[in-house]
Amino acid sequence: MSQEQGITPRAKDFSAWYNDAVMRAELADYSPVRGCMVIRPNGYAIWELIQQALDRMFKDTGHRNAYFPLLIPQSFLAKEAEHVEGFAPEVAVVTRAGGKELDEPLVIRPTSETIIYDSFAKWIHSYRDLPLLINQWANIVRWEMRTRLFLRTTEFLWQEGHTAHVDEADAEREARQMLAVYRRFAEEWMAMPVLTGVKTDSEKFAGALRTYAVEALMQDNKSIQAGTTHHLGQNFAKAFGVQFQTAAGGLDYVWNTSWGLSTRLIGGLVMTHGDDVGIVCPPRLAPVQVVVVPIYRSDAERTAVSEVADRAAKSLRDGGFRVELDAREGMKPGAKYYEWEGQGVPLRLEVGPKDVAKEQVFAARRTGGKAPIPLAGLVDGVRAALEEIQSGLYQAARERREANTRRGVSRDELVALMAGPGGFAFGGFCGRLECELAIKEATKATVRVLPDEEFRSPTPPATCAWCGSPSVVEAVWAKAY
Amino acid sequence: MSQEQGITPRAKDFSAWYNDAVMRAELADYSPVRGCMVIRPNGYAIWELIQQALDRMFKDTGHRNAYFPLLIPQSFLAKEAEHVEGFAPEVAVVTRAGGKELDEPLVIRPTSETIIYDSFAKWIHSYRDLPLLINQWANIVRWEMRTRLFLRTTEFLWQEGHTAHVDEADAEREARQMLAVYRRFAEEWMAMPVLTGVKTDSEKFAGALRTYAVEALMQDNKSIQAGTTHHLGQNFAKAFGVQFQTAAGGLDYVWNTSWGLSTRLIGGLVMTHGDDVGIVCPPRLAPVQVVVVPIYRSDAERTAVSEVADRAAKSLRDGGFRVELDAREGMKPGAKYYEWEGQGVPLRLEVGPKDVAKEQVFAARRTGGKAPIPLAGLVDGVRAALEEIQSGLYQAARERREANTRRGVSRDELVALMAGPGGFAFGGFCGRLECELAIKEATKATVRVLPDEEFRSPTPPATCAWCGSPSVVEAVWAKAY
Repeated sequence: MSQEQGITPRAKDFSAWYNDAVMRAELADYSPVRGCMVIRPNGYAIWELIQQALDRMFKDTGHRNAYFPLLIPQSFLAKEAEHVEGFAPEVAVVTRAGGKELDEPLVIRPTSETIIYDSFAKWIHSYRDLPLLINQWANIVRWEMRTRLFLRTTEFLWQEGHTAHVDEADAEREARQMLAVYRRFAEEWMAMPVLTGVKTDSEKFAGALRTYAVEALMQDNKSIQAGTTHHLGQNFAKAFGVQFQTAAGGLDYVWNTSWGLSTRLIGGLVMTHGDDVGIVCPPRLAPVQVVVVPIYRSDAERTAVSEVADRAAKSLRDGGFRVELDAREGMKPGAKYYEWEGQGVPLRLEVGPKDVAKEQVFAARRTGGKAPIPLAGLVDGVRAALEEIQSGLYQAARERREANTRRGVSRDELVALMAGPGGFAFGGFCGRLECELAIKEATKATVRVLPDEEFRSPTPPATCAWCGSPSVVEAVWAKAY
Repeated sequence: MSQEQGITPRAKDFSAWYNDAVMRAELADYSPVRGCMVIRPNGYAIWELIQQALDRMFKDTGHRNAYFPLLIPQSFLAKEAEHVEGFAPEVAVVTRAGGKELDEPLVIRPTSETIIYDSFAKWIHSYRDLPLLINQWANIVRWEMRTRLFLRTTEFLWQEGHTAHVDEADAEREARQMLAVYRRFAEEWMAMPVLTGVKTDSEKFAGALRTYAVEALMQDNKSIQAGTTHHLGQNFAKAFGVQFQTAAGGLDYVWNTSWGLSTRLIGGLVMTHGDDVGIVCPPRLAPVQVVVVPIYRSDAERTAVSEVADRAAKSLRDGGFRVELDAREGMKPGAKYYEWEGQGVPLRLEVGPKDVAKEQVFAARRTGGKAPIPLAGLVDGVRAALEEIQSGLYQAARERREANTRRGVSRDELVALMAGPGGFAFGGFCGRLECELAIKEATKATVRVLPDEEFRSPTPPATCAWCGSPSVVEAVWAKAY
């Protein structure tokens, strides 16, 4: 059994490793349609767990799901000037339907602000109708030139929240609240540490007042934007006439927010936790958390072992775990291990004749380490092991991020870092677009966020990492997906 | 308070009543895109409950979810001759994307057989890979000329199952199994009685060997096709080269099935149970099963009443029910009742000072009838009431269907029935397309199904209802949505 068979080591070629890991786990497949992917059952099962966790968080914060049309009149996009400039180049356009040319072409939604705020204008009359808190689970199409499974695909799945508020403060509170939800999801479910902060103007959503993001550092020291929330101000409300009667009896435009998180996160999961064997699923998002493998040589052994394996699987299922019992005949245990490791199953329980005699199972962690768990305390033992794996993954990712973070970088250090190992570079920033573009040009790194207070350096940088003039804000640079 | 305010009575204009009921319950709204609808939170919440129930049934029968591209190369449709003939006239076509004309136009999926079986051809190698049991939750676009909210919309949401099998018998077993799942879902969750059976060749899915359906009779005596399952034979397997190595070592094409059920079912729910006040949700699919309304005149009353109402709502939520506590101030109880009745909430619990004194709540059923429930036995009392409402709705719908079913119809009876009250007409059928088309022309009724044995008449009809020649099969005619 060669565990490395068929998968490129990360150190050799991270990008090839990523594709190999995704394919080996059967998370996704290429499709005959340029830039589109097929999400296979193993990948979709992770997405279902992501959906369940997020949907619960959205509902707990007062949001309700709805569904708006896939197709948007082309003229709608044009109603918000920045928005159309940002999205027009990448839309797919339906020009013919039902056998006829359409009078007005329809674009497939690249995001749904325009079509949703058109409905909001019909539904919102008074301050009593606010806040209006809506979320949509949907597919999105953006015509991308260079695509990667999950990370950048022409079509992807996501959720998009869309809300309307009486004033700027309430919209700001919402944008911040949903950023905190994304952060909590990333940390507690994905086991993925993130930085939070605000985007620079040049990196913000087309049509937003400002954009907040959670950013995570991958193993190749590039950053992934794992979720964004936008304070849209009254830009779309004015474009779509979303007005309401205020408590004071006047008429005002609502303040909107929107926020989204997509299947790209599955790529982030792979690149945060994967190793040279393949993907590693954090237990809370693992479609299979525990696989039970019976090991035997004779029929007599098989009977004894199977009885214990069955019982173990059943008690764990009753305990609320997602369990597979791999009792396939004619397949060696090693071949089974290899398959489940490639799928990133966090915990494997081996049940052999010796284990039966000792009234135990042998637990092998996908993250390394083997230890027996007594059958008498199986459910508690497995729960503890999964919790340790979950928190261990988070700690390892966090330590890796810290080890690959540089603070107070100078111009030379920034250039050297991005030409070399990469990572997060914290430094002073004068706030000028000129410096931002020069850095991008010279290093391919962009400002990922202007970090929130808790992530900022203890001593604020005095000068801009690039031009040396006084710093007005600390920034975090990285190359990004 | 006028409960009939703003909604057309069913007897006056069933079609207007339907739209009024849907709008009053805020299930859906019209959209600026021709034929598309917006599914509002109240409507989407029903869809979420439908999804949860069906998804559980699909997984319990061994199916896994996946996701395939929205866009399909136009040439794919053409690979199966009947399929392209059936769907080409109603597809929406993307001809431009990313600012350029596409070399090959892409159609938005009107159904996904072609794009899915293209993947199956890559994934299936041996009989060991079979059966392959996949389901997809997705949006679909079919360019319809005349649209109705939920019942017929250009875009709709659905699930589509796609499976591959080693032989005809196994595919047949699957098509039949999923028909039984749809029937069970309709009966047990929707409280909607259905006929099951096979479609005639002229009504079957484009590309299928045969199509099975569940059909339900609405209150206007028109039938709705509430779900279909298709035995596709080897038609698509041959078109897309889905071959496998048989156990005997040969090479064969797989046998496929597909099956789908859509948001149109929400229209069926409305038209099965609604009354002149609006929609009535069967408890198992009601987003709000119980609404608790406190009633008081003074502050002192309010304190006592609110305490009991809060406690009642909490204990019911803890008991697993979906509960709203309507404690809105400055709104009379009657106005609240009116609102919740329009949303079809099956059970309303009123809590007034007298109820507090008697340690009870007063339960009003959306389907009629009021009775106190002692606080001491609230959870059990509510459970029993909801179960009675659920089974009462089913029984009422079943009795209505039976009352509107005629058996052994003659030609004159069929004509008179379809010109008059409508309903299900069982009669003999010679099996000839000529008769089928003549009946459709003369009565606007179509063969809904050739019914399964348990629905057939005790004595098989001897002659064709239309031409009088010997009957080869019993058929059920009805006008349909």
